[in-house]
Amino acid sequence: MDSIQPIDWRDNTLFLLDQRVLPNQQNWVQYQHAADIANAISNMVVRGAPAIGITAAYAVVLAARDAWNNKGKGWKKAMVEPLALLAKSRPTAVNLHWAIERMTICYLDLDNEQSPESALLLEAKHIHNEDVTANHKMGKLGADLIDDNSMVITHCNAGALATGGFGTALGVIRQGFVEGKIKHVYADETRPWLQGARLTAWELQQDNIPVTLQADGAAAALMATGVVDWIIVGADRITANGDVANKIGTYMLAILAKYHNVKMMVVAPTSTIDWELHDGDEIPIEQRSEQEVTEINGHQIAPEGVPALNPAFDVTPASLIDAIVTEAGVVLSPSLKNMRTLK
Amino acid sequence: MDSIQPIDWRDNTLFLLDQRVLPNQQNWVQYQHAADIANAISNMVVRGAPAIGITAAYAVVLAARDAWNNKGKGWKKAMVEPLALLAKSRPTAVNLHWAIERMTICYLDLDNEQSPESALLLEAKHIHNEDVTANHKMGKLGADLIDDNSMVITHCNAGALATGGFGTALGVIRQGFVEGKIKHVYADETRPWLQGARLTAWELQQDNIPVTLQADGAAAALMATGVVDWIIVGADRITANGDVANKIGTYMLAILAKYHNVKMMVVAPTSTIDWELHDGDEIPIEQRSEQEVTEINGHQIAPEGVPALNPAFDVTPASLIDAIVTEAGVVLSPSLKNMRTLK
Repeated sequence: MDSIQPIDWRDNTLFLLDQRVLPNQQNWVQYQHAADIANAISNMVVRGAPAIGITAAYAVVLAARDAWNNKGKGWKKAMVEPLALLAKSRPTAVNLHWAIERMTICYLDLDNEQSPESALLLEAKHIHNEDVTANHKMGKLGADLIDDNSMVITHCNAGALATGGFGTALGVIRQGFVEGKIKHVYADETRPWLQGARLTAWELQQDNIPVTLQADGAAAALMATGVVDWIIVGADRITANGDVANKIGTYMLAILAKYHNVKMMVVAPTSTIDWELHDGDEIPIEQRSEQEVTEINGHQIAPEGVPALNPAFDVTPASLIDAIVTEAGVVLSPSLKNMRTLK
Repeated sequence: MDSIQPIDWRDNTLFLLDQRVLPNQQNWVQYQHAADIANAISNMVVRGAPAIGITAAYAVVLAARDAWNNKGKGWKKAMVEPLALLAKSRPTAVNLHWAIERMTICYLDLDNEQSPESALLLEAKHIHNEDVTANHKMGKLGADLIDDNSMVITHCNAGALATGGFGTALGVIRQGFVEGKIKHVYADETRPWLQGARLTAWELQQDNIPVTLQADGAAAALMATGVVDWIIVGADRITANGDVANKIGTYMLAILAKYHNVKMMVVAPTSTIDWELHDGDEIPIEQRSEQEVTEINGHQIAPEGVPALNPAFDVTPASLIDAIVTEAGVVLSPSLKNMRTLK
């Protein structure tokens, strides 16, 4: 269950599996420059908070290579602009900033007189490998919370494609399936970008985990039948009190879960926690292009000129969440106090 | 605000505005035979519970013409098969059965020896006109419940296109807009068939009512901001206790509305009430093709072979509804007892 890995460093080049065209096409795009990677993140060639973090780490390697080639021993100053551009590529996922900060701490210690590439590449690979290891750890911790033969709903894609591999929410689902805890997954299609239909359904199909697709508006009716045990999702940012920003529609699921006595699990590495923010009101929510709603696959759906709201994320209050699963441990009934156990 | 009328009888022919291709194309399709109209209802050339009822009434006229032409004075027996086919064209909307029954009562009284066409056409036109009149009545009754400058969310299309004209939920919205009760409408796009994006956005744009489109999963986040005052939707079948079957996603909105103290209004003519069913558990829910979820505009979105759930409707319990508005009056806090006031 480790076959899908969306980020690959080889031949001194970063390769990203283009998530805009999956599952119909499996295209790998090559990157040699940090500015192009900032665009790739904005345009969602790569998406998913942990995957964005890892990609940004490799982008710092490429920024350093260019800085060294262009400026020699003045390379550190030449890092400021490309890293600032990278930091602005998407506003909500905090893993992006976390990765850039970690790479910055690393490069500030390096010698001005030597090429920084190999040292930074080592650190980026550490970040990448640590993510996959964390996902396997979370997979086990999350699966431990689930009873045998459970049915789950997942939203968006918090899978191998959203991480270095194995996935966060889908990591728990993969591990849960292996252990007999999970027997069937309902994937919300997740409009407007259809990550559920395109990415999650594909990932689970690849691993022979039974998956059924549904429109986002159908989740409530499914819960009403009593067959759903857990909602399992990822996160783009978690605040100190346990509020969770995740793909638009997650908050809806959390309310529906509470109404139907279905449990709600959020799975994310500690790099997703923003300890500097007290609660979800402080999280910047990215508003994306109206065309993502008014068009599908480049075809105009809505009448010309009708505006659309397109918030990419929403905030689920900690009070609606039963468990936050991280590689450092599980927080049940998240709150400011309970979250501190992770520190 | 009466310019949009999806059903037109002229030149001894039924014309339906093809709702599958709106708003990009405005195609009128002609029908001369009841069996073709049964297909048109199944395939959603026409949709919306009241519009299906009106269309079925005209289909009975055409069935009678064919029966008279083929069988002469034996025409009544020749009505049984086409009307049975028509009754099976969609299972959830009860207006279909209501209209067929009303036309049946009418034709059973007619002379065996005379062409039934003109008498039945008169009855079908009555049904059609009564629907538009009812919608204007409901528009006023519904608008009376709304405070000035309110913001509303609507789901699917319960507009002129779903009726003989003016609309049920959109009738209240049209009237409410004219009276200054409603200042802005958020239309859920309403996957999988995108009635909100294609039909509701178009109708409101035609009448210059401010409308913003959103993905179905975004409604909860919008409600959390506190700007939404009412959810206003139509219905496909209402049971004796006030439970409401309506487009998939309506039940979701009702739960979200309760959680956010937003009010929930259902607008439907009394022909939508099925007094023979005690509650929503007894309503047959149509399961439509998986391709409506896995494909969009004929393009495969999901990986080949992934199954999809596609219930066309869900059931909202009366306890989540603040008001059911009919042409015979308003039922607040619907229940078995409160619904009886409509009888």
